[in-house]
Amino acid sequence: MFVSRDNYEKKADKYVRLHGTIEFAGGGSFEDVVETFRNAGIVPEEAYSGINYGGTIHDHSELDRVTRAYIDAVIKGKKLTKSWKKGFNGIIDAYYGNYPETFTYKGISYTPKSFAQSLGLNMDDYVGITSFTHHPFYRPFVIEVPDNYIWGLNYNVTIDELIEIIDNSIEKGYTIAWGADVSEKGFQHRKGIAVMPDMELNNLQGTDRERWEGLSKTELETEILKFDKPVTELKITQEMRQEAFDNYETTDDHGMHIVGVAKDQNGAKFYKVKNSWGTDNSEYSGFFYVSENYVRYKTMNILINKNSIPEIIKRKLGL
Amino acid sequence: MFVSRDNYEKKADKYVRLHGTIEFAGGGSFEDVVETFRNAGIVPEEAYSGINYGGTIHDHSELDRVTRAYIDAVIKGKKLTKSWKKGFNGIIDAYYGNYPETFTYKGISYTPKSFAQSLGLNMDDYVGITSFTHHPFYRPFVIEVPDNYIWGLNYNVTIDELIEIIDNSIEKGYTIAWGADVSEKGFQHRKGIAVMPDMELNNLQGTDRERWEGLSKTELETEILKFDKPVTELKITQEMRQEAFDNYETTDDHGMHIVGVAKDQNGAKFYKVKNSWGTDNSEYSGFFYVSENYVRYKTMNILINKNSIPEIIKRKLGL
Amino acid sequence: MFVSRDNYEKKADKYVRLHGTIEFAGGGSFEDVVETFRNAGIVPEEAYSGINYGGTIHDHSELDRVTRAYIDAVIKGKKLTKSWKKGFNGIIDAYYGNYPETFTYKGISYTPKSFAQSLGLNMDDYVGITSFTHHPFYRPFVIEVPDNYIWGLNYNVTIDELIEIIDNSIEKGYTIAWGADVSEKGFQHRKGIAVMPDMELNNLQGTDRERWEGLSKTELETEILKFDKPVTELKITQEMRQEAFDNYETTDDHGMHIVGVAKDQNGAKFYKVKNSWGTDNSEYSGFFYVSENYVRYKTMNILINKNSIPEIIKRKLGL
Amino acid sequence: MFVSRDNYEKKADKYVRLHGTIEFAGGGSFEDVVETFRNAGIVPEEAYSGINYGGTIHDHSELDRVTRAYIDAVIKGKKLTKSWKKGFNGIIDAYYGNYPETFTYKGISYTPKSFAQSLGLNMDDYVGITSFTHHPFYRPFVIEVPDNYIWGLNYNVTIDELIEIIDNSIEKGYTIAWGADVSEKGFQHRKGIAVMPDMELNNLQGTDRERWEGLSKTELETEILKFDKPVTELKITQEMRQEAFDNYETTDDHGMHIVGVAKDQNGAKFYKVKNSWGTDNSEYSGFFYVSENYVRYKTMNILINKNSIPEIIKRKLGL
Amino acid sequence: MFVSRDNYEKKADKYVRLHGTIEFAGGGSFEDVVETFRNAGIVPEEAYSGINYGGTIHDHSELDRVTRAYIDAVIKGKKLTKSWKKGFNGIIDAYYGNYPETFTYKGISYTPKSFAQSLGLNMDDYVGITSFTHHPFYRPFVIEVPDNYIWGLNYNVTIDELIEIIDNSIEKGYTIAWGADVSEKGFQHRKGIAVMPDMELNNLQGTDRERWEGLSKTELETEILKFDKPVTELKITQEMRQEAFDNYETTDDHGMHIVGVAKDQNGAKFYKVKNSWGTDNSEYSGFFYVSENYVRYKTMNILINKNSIPEIIKRKLGL
Amino acid sequence: MFVSRDNYEKKADKYVRLHGTIEFAGGGSFEDVVETFRNAGIVPEEAYSGINYGGTIHDHSELDRVTRAYIDAVIKGKKLTKSWKKGFNGIIDAYYGNYPETFTYKGISYTPKSFAQSLGLNMDDYVGITSFTHHPFYRPFVIEVPDNYIWGLNYNVTIDELIEIIDNSIEKGYTIAWGADVSEKGFQHRKGIAVMPDMELNNLQGTDRERWEGLSKTELETEILKFDKPVTELKITQEMRQEAFDNYETTDDHGMHIVGVAKDQNGAKFYKVKNSWGTDNSEYSGFFYVSENYVRYKTMNILINKNSIPEIIKRKLGL
Repeated sequence: MFVSRDNYEKKADKYVRLHGTIEFAGGGSFEDVVETFRNAGIVPEEAYSGINYGGTIHDHSELDRVTRAYIDAVIKGKKLTKSWKKGFNGIIDAYYGNYPETFTYKGISYTPKSFAQSLGLNMDDYVGITSFTHHPFYRPFVIEVPDNYIWGLNYNVTIDELIEIIDNSIEKGYTIAWGADVSEKGFQHRKGIAVMPDMELNNLQGTDRERWEGLSKTELETEILKFDKPVTELKITQEMRQEAFDNYETTDDHGMHIVGVAKDQNGAKFYKVKNSWGTDNSEYSGFFYVSENYVRYKTMNILINKNSIPEIIKRKLGL
Repeated sequence: MFVSRDNYEKKADKYVRLHGTIEFAGGGSFEDVVETFRNAGIVPEEAYSGINYGGTIHDHSELDRVTRAYIDAVIKGKKLTKSWKKGFNGIIDAYYGNYPETFTYKGISYTPKSFAQSLGLNMDDYVGITSFTHHPFYRPFVIEVPDNYIWGLNYNVTIDELIEIIDNSIEKGYTIAWGADVSEKGFQHRKGIAVMPDMELNNLQGTDRERWEGLSKTELETEILKFDKPVTELKITQEMRQEAFDNYETTDDHGMHIVGVAKDQNGAKFYKVKNSWGTDNSEYSGFFYVSENYVRYKTMNILINKNSIPEIIKRKLGL
Repeated sequence: MFVSRDNYEKKADKYVRLHGTIEFAGGGSFEDVVETFRNAGIVPEEAYSGINYGGTIHDHSELDRVTRAYIDAVIKGKKLTKSWKKGFNGIIDAYYGNYPETFTYKGISYTPKSFAQSLGLNMDDYVGITSFTHHPFYRPFVIEVPDNYIWGLNYNVTIDELIEIIDNSIEKGYTIAWGADVSEKGFQHRKGIAVMPDMELNNLQGTDRERWEGLSKTELETEILKFDKPVTELKITQEMRQEAFDNYETTDDHGMHIVGVAKDQNGAKFYKVKNSWGTDNSEYSGFFYVSENYVRYKTMNILINKNSIPEIIKRKLGL
Repeated sequence: MFVSRDNYEKKADKYVRLHGTIEFAGGGSFEDVVETFRNAGIVPEEAYSGINYGGTIHDHSELDRVTRAYIDAVIKGKKLTKSWKKGFNGIIDAYYGNYPETFTYKGISYTPKSFAQSLGLNMDDYVGITSFTHHPFYRPFVIEVPDNYIWGLNYNVTIDELIEIIDNSIEKGYTIAWGADVSEKGFQHRKGIAVMPDMELNNLQGTDRERWEGLSKTELETEILKFDKPVTELKITQEMRQEAFDNYETTDDHGMHIVGVAKDQNGAKFYKVKNSWGTDNSEYSGFFYVSENYVRYKTMNILINKNSIPEIIKRKLGL
Repeated sequence: MFVSRDNYEKKADKYVRLHGTIEFAGGGSFEDVVETFRNAGIVPEEAYSGINYGGTIHDHSELDRVTRAYIDAVIKGKKLTKSWKKGFNGIIDAYYGNYPETFTYKGISYTPKSFAQSLGLNMDDYVGITSFTHHPFYRPFVIEVPDNYIWGLNYNVTIDELIEIIDNSIEKGYTIAWGADVSEKGFQHRKGIAVMPDMELNNLQGTDRERWEGLSKTELETEILKFDKPVTELKITQEMRQEAFDNYETTDDHGMHIVGVAKDQNGAKFYKVKNSWGTDNSEYSGFFYVSENYVRYKTMNILINKNSIPEIIKRKLGL
Repeated sequence: MFVSRDNYEKKADKYVRLHGTIEFAGGGSFEDVVETFRNAGIVPEEAYSGINYGGTIHDHSELDRVTRAYIDAVIKGKKLTKSWKKGFNGIIDAYYGNYPETFTYKGISYTPKSFAQSLGLNMDDYVGITSFTHHPFYRPFVIEVPDNYIWGLNYNVTIDELIEIIDNSIEKGYTIAWGADVSEKGFQHRKGIAVMPDMELNNLQGTDRERWEGLSKTELETEILKFDKPVTELKITQEMRQEAFDNYETTDDHGMHIVGVAKDQNGAKFYKVKNSWGTDNSEYSGFFYVSENYVRYKTMNILINKNSIPEIIKRKLGL
């Protein structure tokens, strides 16, 4: 919540400076966390829950509405007062609680900055990686998604190299922050699985084909999505992922953690991913398995430790 | 500014309760002052200037915009949080400065309430009077103007009686708080005069008529409004003032103080009025003279001490 | 329909005078009926059905739309004509039929006023009662709900006293006009019941608890709302009803009639209420039973005969 | 005003049938008059002034606003009532006075239809003529201007033929109803003149050129528009008038009457035109002179008696 | 698609000329086809599929949005450029492919006009017929539906005569283009049937009545719409079809083809109709049966060969 | 115009990718030129005037309207077609003329890229410099102005250093691209001067003070802005320029060229600046003189050749 609060204030400042020509919404990106950590420090959730409005769940809709309305009213002015930012902070304080100048965590007193320091992490070790063809490979660029209000840079590699980086990271014992679109039909959090099934009967073979022959398109889709046996997947190319990004099919990204790798009974590669959506409605207590094809198709970007990048790619990126 | 601040908060509360179906704007009425004095106390302007946004003049436009936007965003909710009011006060604090729980005035420390008490005024002595025919006479009613968000009551008398009350007050040494429409052409603050000139050539007589014979309607109006000699006025009836109220010509009211009475060279009665618009561009250093006809036509209401009402009217009103 | 028609015209007049800063919608309040009866008289539905647009059911949506659009267009003017009100009445006449200057009912010819007189009711005997803490007790105030466009006053008592007044009325043989929010899940018109079930498993005891142990929150709610046996109710306090009013949970009020009192098998007190929603889909032919807790929580106000108020409360109210 | 009232009702009906996809505004066309005369009859202005809203001037703005708002609210319905048209007429009655079923004019009692008959005019003798190249010549078409809500047909001829028809009409003693754009700088009602001056210095010759050499473009324009001597005009072609129609420069049309022809000192042809804008601010008591070039450029259409068309053109039109 | 493309351009031109006061949407009317055929020629779908945007199905929503937005932006100008139309065509080219100046069909090269000529159809043989009482019978008028942007004329006959014309056409071997509202509950494309069932129990008789006695209105409707046996229909009169047109129940028209006539087991007359909605979900492979009552009630208009009209009606129409 | 065209297309692409959350307008920044030169090449204005819409002046308003409307309609889609970009280019072609794949300039045939190469400029030599305190000095950042849609980076130095860089550039014979706010009262293009006069009488001295004693604030301003003698200027600090940027007073930037330096009769330093607004209304044939104070206050950024930066600053910037 500390990151969220910090970004609310930064977003408001940038929104006003840019006369409203950026996204002002609840979402964010990995770079937000990195920047807050770097500049403002960090506070553990136990020490700053940011819940201050008469409930235990973060219902951001009223806060989103009033902050947006407020800054939209500010930018209508010809000349701004010096009070508007103080007023904005007054709203934030009301909904999140006052800024935690100092706090106590496990018996020790911290400021956000001293707590960040105590964690021993160097933000300069972390780097974002993505893979799109509308920018040249091996140079950083700002991914054009509205939530990336912070204009954070990501290095651009081929999708094969991106997979290579992930695999190398896991091997070296690093986890990977994974931003991906989770709106596909094949992403089924409850079933603990995310795949890109090929739903075209003509592409299927053998028993699958026999079993489903004669089904209508909708019936076929329903059958496949039952996931009662391994599905035949689409083979995802660089072009396919680019097209899905260009035509808005890949937009709704969400941050998760890749923590391991596994194979199914047919030897297909899956990544083990930790999600923040709770363990209640989850087949594998908060984890799920994502096929390599899903990762190739729907990854927006990853945030990794520089040291986990294979040397040859590192050199291409000039890191 | 203390009254203004107090009413901002009360107005926001009422606006939200009523789902936006009252006026939310800067304006107000005499009843606002009375109610604030009665319930929250009062603070002299020297002790709480309420200027907190980087200038010395109260430019309310940004404040008006952001507060209105904020509460309009609040009322869009299905279920409100408990934080919204705190957030609203955060805005008000940013623009007015924090609430003056205590303050020092001429060396003495006060709270708003103790200062109000120190003035020795009893708000129950004050009563509002108006004169309209769309409600029965001699009973109080809520004047239907948007600024009267507080739904304050005024006693209804005939316009002749209203003039009688004013005259009686002056005679007894009371001043009168006067709410009136100041948007008429005959209201000329710079020239220190407010009259209701009859601009119909056919109604004029003698030298006036000779002098202006042959002028177009616009030229005639320009000549008359020079006010280089006393003008012939319209005789205002109860019907005329009602019609002007009904058709929106009388809406834009402003609060002033009637402090005396005078006659011009022709014996026409004028009231001496104190205005808050400063002395710079004013013929008579902040005072001006209003004809009885103007008062009859354009008075929205008056606020007076009960004791200044003639006994016979007082009885009709049941006071 | 006569009351509805009368209020359409009054509402339009007030809306225009206030430049649109009141609610203009179909809803209303008890005070509307009282005021129409007092000033314009009354007409039985058989004598003035107000159906004039090619159907037998009152579909107000077109009428609501055109009247609202019409007056919104009127108030955009700087200076109004005298024709607008006649035009408004022309619309009302088209949808309701002409104003019933005279009508015949059971063989006798009446005007609305003479019919009202014939009923022998004195409107001054009726008084509204409510119970909220944002105004002082024992003094009347205007309940801040949009439908209360008429700014009708209600006396404020504690919720215990309000229940006392209802009970006393029933005992003395009076019925009570009851305005309440009917949007709660526990209000089930078809099942003829309205209660405030406690849906928190931890608050339940004995067999209930056993029976429902292991159900998800949604399943539990479904089970409880089957109403196949008496439910454990929330105990409603003054604070709870105030919070529900403040946060918009109690807003959607509807007028009904409390006609009696009853107890269920466990001795819990229920009021017998007559509703206007027809007998077709109703367990008890148009009547239903409301628990005291529901009344405590969701009552907006009641309209009662002064004589039915216990003496001690009457004195507190100065009646 | 009778025509205006009749068209308000017809326009509302058509607007509703077409779900709002026509212009609904105060303007109209010659065909409106012809159609009203043909179907509903006519009433002289003395007998039906249509002024019913507390003034002597037709201020249509409130009426325009409320009628437009009303029908826009009607068409939002999925299924309309039968009452909406009655309500619309109620509004029209309020602003125009009731429909003149019968009226007395110069001592004789008429209905609108009987009065129309008494005038001895046969509407079938009248025909509209225009000249544009986006439709084939010599066939009628609906001129695409929003005011032509009635979809009235005009015969299409070359601009030379249109001038020929006007000249022939005047010669034969007929007047011509002339619809033209009056928003050009060269149209100066006060000066009693309408021309299309050539404002390009390079196109000027002799003394003009000498006199104005060295003036800026704006100064030159000001000098020319003084009209203190005959101006050099643009020679208007068919292409020029088409371009001005296509690019919205010719849109704002107004109905006048061509009553004669004249020559200026240089022999340039002018038409004498009667305008309805009053005689007060008019050089020639309500008449003014329009150059042939202005007529060629800015004529939308004319309405004439068939008999005034030269035979050879008449044959081309199949009349 | 060629017709669709041609009408997009014509509609844009007319919309701009009329400053937006016509419908600009995807729909159209029979007259659109006739006019395109007459003026621009025709191209078979195989030769100009007009699919140019990365899919095989015509998803017009993006095209509709961008073209509407474009022309709405154009008409906001005071003076238009000459470029707007070229820009509009640039959009159309992008979505439909370039204009097919020439194309090859079955080995022969055509222009749209030469192909139209090769078909040997004379558009002057075709005439639209409708039946409404808000215009006089036997004269053509423009049906007031938004899709009829082309202001195409239809001849007006009684509904009995319209049926007579259809029957005569079928008998003579002509098919009939049929425009009708298909939004009725009794229009069931899947079941291959369109009827106007009488859903009022009181109007039913014999076994039906017995069978359904005791059902609620909704249950009754569900039972009847199962269409498991012939239903009792409403007898449709001229007044009923007019009322449905006047109150917006008949608006949503769709073009189909009447190709034959049939009787059901009870001898009721049905028309065999070909629909363009595909054969997949259709009881009778793309055909369905429409009762005469449905045709009487819901026909907007028909387009037929003049020669198929009975002589006596032809004479009334002056054809 | 080639740069303008190139940026229209890039801006549309970015706007669509970002779902509309950047500015889409005619304006731009120095980085736009640099990027177009680098990636697409350049075309001299004589070879590609980009005027294609029936006039000789670039009236961008229609083009701005239609392109904005078009892309706003595109981004409303859930899934985009591949046609939208082609349609956008169709619009651009219509207004600018087709893309100049090749062109002839001074007898030689070029492509945009070959022409760029022929100029012998290396874009990597150019760097943007600015001076604001809301970012750390000596590191590049993206200036938050809406026109900077390209998110171009500028190096941040103190305002003293920025002046030093300008002075060094002029000395070394380089010109400086200067982006500045030109909306100040002291910026008077016609008079060929831009200064920041101190308008506070109390700050003035000697004869000025005597001369203007007694003038009102407005009169004083008028006198000073006559510029008939050198004015006393405000001394601009880093804080003042930051405040003006923060409160929206410095926003409206415009690109010009600093070409030299000069002193006035009092020895005050002025820069000689070339403006693109034409020579007609200009005191010094298209040039004007800007005081150092104006440059300090109102400079948004400069674009310069790296080699013109003093060594010591260059090192701070890491260049």
